[in-house]
Amino acid sequence: MSSIRTLTLYNFNTSYSFGIKDPVVEKDPSVTSRLARMKDTYEKEGIRKTVEAIIIVHDHGHPHILLLQIGNSFFKLPGGKLKPGESEIDGLQRKLTKKLLPIGSNESETPWEIGDHVSTWWRPNFEPSIYPYITPHTTKPKECKKLYVVTLPEKCTFAVPSNLTLRAVPLFEIYNNATRYGSIISCVPQLISRYNFVYLNVD
Amino acid sequence: MSSIRTLTLYNFNTSYSFGIKDPVVEKDPSVTSRLARMKDTYEKEGIRKTVEAIIIVHDHGHPHILLLQIGNSFFKLPGGKLKPGESEIDGLQRKLTKKLLPIGSNESETPWEIGDHVSTWWRPNFEPSIYPYITPHTTKPKECKKLYVVTLPEKCTFAVPSNLTLRAVPLFEIYNNATRYGSIISCVPQLISRYNFVYLNVD
Ligand SMILES: [Zn+2]
Ligand SMILES: [Zn+2]
Ligand SMILES: [Zn+2]
Ligand SMILES: [Zn+2]
Repeated sequence: MSSIRTLTLYNFNTSYSFGIKDPVVEKDPSVTSRLARMKDTYEKEGIRKTVEAIIIVHDHGHPHILLLQIGNSFFKLPGGKLKPGESEIDGLQRKLTKKLLPIGSNESETPWEIGDHVSTWWRPNFEPSIYPYITPHTTKPKECKKLYVVTLPEKCTFAVPSNLTLRAVPLFEIYNNATRYGSIISCVPQLISRYNFVYLNVD
Repeated sequence: MSSIRTLTLYNFNTSYSFGIKDPVVEKDPSVTSRLARMKDTYEKEGIRKTVEAIIIVHDHGHPHILLLQIGNSFFKLPGGKLKPGESEIDGLQRKLTKKLLPIGSNESETPWEIGDHVSTWWRPNFEPSIYPYITPHTTKPKECKKLYVVTLPEKCTFAVPSNLTLRAVPLFEIYNNATRYGSIISCVPQLISRYNFVYLNVD
């Protein structure tokens, strides 16, 4: 099992360009309604399977991860829920295409590459709490969320729904900041700490 | 890059037996003296390289990790500092043998297996703070600490220095508990969350 893995990071400002597309429909006006909808879906489909991407870029040689910001204070990793029977990779490609690429992009020809699965989180109940293990005596977790590292090419064009903002946030801002970013995102620096980063600037 | 990795965990109480050996000399009476000694060694050897083991067992089907407890309140992962030029694997084998195996055990015939490197931490200054990335504008980090997953066989005998206690601590006790376990250990549940665990009980 090899100890060293290298990821090449490109400069967020010079490697990528950004467009806007139509807003994605926000299905839930509140956390309560979201948890109620999760429960409905669970009764039909069973455990909710979600996949999210850790996409790493750099600015001034400091690693940043890409987050989607909703409103002023809510951040999430790009990704979403798998359809019944859909594979993790297919589902993540579909969700990332929907949230990050221009309209008409083909989800089987994405510019990025899905890399390592680095973390799994479990939601024991229809409640906000989620854990990096199955909590004791939970026999039917309600959600399983997997995080994958996704690597970008040296150039590509993003297009983000107009109700979301794509932000590159430095690791030192995220680390230990569960208050602002939540328990999952605030742990991403630790999850990617085993990689060596190479920083490239491409005009 | 494969998504699923399975680790087999054995029952802490029925798979392993425990002995005691002579105490290991505690080099530093205080954190201040430890940081001063780190500085002395840095001037002679350069960056301090340390390696630590995440050893996972189970009790009642709940994953636990092995920690060495010193006194009432200080916990550490087994491991330690590499000698100049020593490889990470050799150094970890030497340190684990010294801290966990009976006297006379051969560090090239250990019962465990060194697995994945799952995390790297950097100490920017001769201070207690350590981060899962190189902090901005730090050109000469003072310490680099790597965490490896180490897997145990279904049976083995440990012998722990009499001034240390080997404890198996459940993930749910460690998670989010940086106050008691520190920033590194409290994040181990997230770091090992991508593994599937299989729980075995062997008489
Ligand atoms: Zn800049
Ligand atoms: Zn139990
Ligand atoms: Zn028991
Ligand atoms: Zn800077």
